Amino acid sequence: MDDVEAIRQLKARYCRLLDTKDWDGYRGIFADDVVIDTTGSGGEVVTGGDAFVAYVRDTLADRVTVHHCHTPEIALTSPSTATGIWAMQDLVRFADGSELTGYGHYHETYEKTGDTWRVTSSTLTRLRMDIARPEAG
Amino acid sequence: MDDVEAIRQLKARYCRLLDTKDWDGYRGIFADDVVIDTTGSGGEVVTGGDAFVAYVRDTLADRVTVHHCHTPEIALTSPSTATGIWAMQDLVRFADGSELTGYGHYHETYEKTGDTWRVTSSTLTRLRMDIARPEAG
Amino acid sequence: MDDVEAIRQLKARYCRLLDTKDWDGYRGIFADDVVIDTTGSGGEVVTGGDAFVAYVRDTLADRVTVHHCHTPEIALTSPSTATGIWAMQDLVRFADGSELTGYGHYHETYEKTGDTWRVTSSTLTRLRMDIARPEAG
Repeated sequence: MDDVEAIRQLKARYCRLLDTKDWDGYRGIFADDVVIDTTGSGGEVVTGGDAFVAYVRDTLADRVTVHHCHTPEIALTSPSTATGIWAMQDLVRFADGSELTGYGHYHETYEKTGDTWRVTSSTLTRLRMDIARPEAG
Repeated sequence: MDDVEAIRQLKARYCRLLDTKDWDGYRGIFADDVVIDTTGSGGEVVTGGDAFVAYVRDTLADRVTVHHCHTPEIALTSPSTATGIWAMQDLVRFADGSELTGYGHYHETYEKTGDTWRVTSSTLTRLRMDIARPEAG
Repeated sequence: MDDVEAIRQLKARYCRLLDTKDWDGYRGIFADDVVIDTTGSGGEVVTGGDAFVAYVRDTLADRVTVHHCHTPEIALTSPSTATGIWAMQDLVRFADGSELTGYGHYHETYEKTGDTWRVTSSTLTRLRMDIARPEAG
């Protein structure tokens, strides 16, 4: 598998392991010193793979989520580093029944160690975020 | 075209020929002895390409449908066999005006005969399925 | 980067530069004599890259838009020409608060000049177009 395809499949697993709540598998997506910036969604900047997976798990483990990623723009910047931009859509059903439907772009960097690509940074910018509230009973 | 790209385009045609109701073209996607498991969506296990296309045609020929597939994880398991996982979203407008919006993953196997890849099995697992009912007039 | 991947990334930029309103970048997607047919969406046939970008800018510069493209079927027809079909979804929030959610396929041709692929024609066919009107206050 070539490097661009390996990075495409890394992001595919990012989405699938998150939405199927496979937290051990999900941890393997990220470098130990990854920096994830979710301030564009009202979240935080989280540093470290363990810290980020704990943060996501606390927030989303009991929520139905869907993350879809589209049309990657991946560029190799050296034999072991790359950048990528992905269009994305996410859905989250919160405990109170409200629903987030969001759209935006992941701006990411990747690093290869041995044969394994991992995410080293990710910043999520938003085009729109819609919240639908459940109707009163 | 390499084998991974050929399988990506096979699934692209699966979606397009289904949504444009090209049933002869759609039949060509599937091996004669394909096994399709839609029990995760409340459907059936259907064996055989002819039987599956007849089943889909009976169910969806008169319905507006949209099937979108994302972020394939394709692995060649021999020169003529492969596995794939696809994130998916589908929309179906039923005769009573209700609307299905569903999300999940296709888990598939593929086989190459001559130069042609076909689907040999497909199981659809679901993250969520929403039904919107038309409002009373 | 091979030609098929270059065309995939061309369409990725088409979506991203449109949705982020980078009109100078967006102009670079299209050949000078491009022909864009949006009659399937109630629009026009527009000829010329400058004219098309002006048309889109007039229509969408102040609107929040999301364009997602999926499962490309790209075929090289010569060393410098190609065809492609893309499944698509778009969202547009209009000034009156109404929302378009549309689904369909882009049917396109591409040409390579030097190292650069550009869109030479694009016809958008529709599976469905939904308009949601804002509720009365």
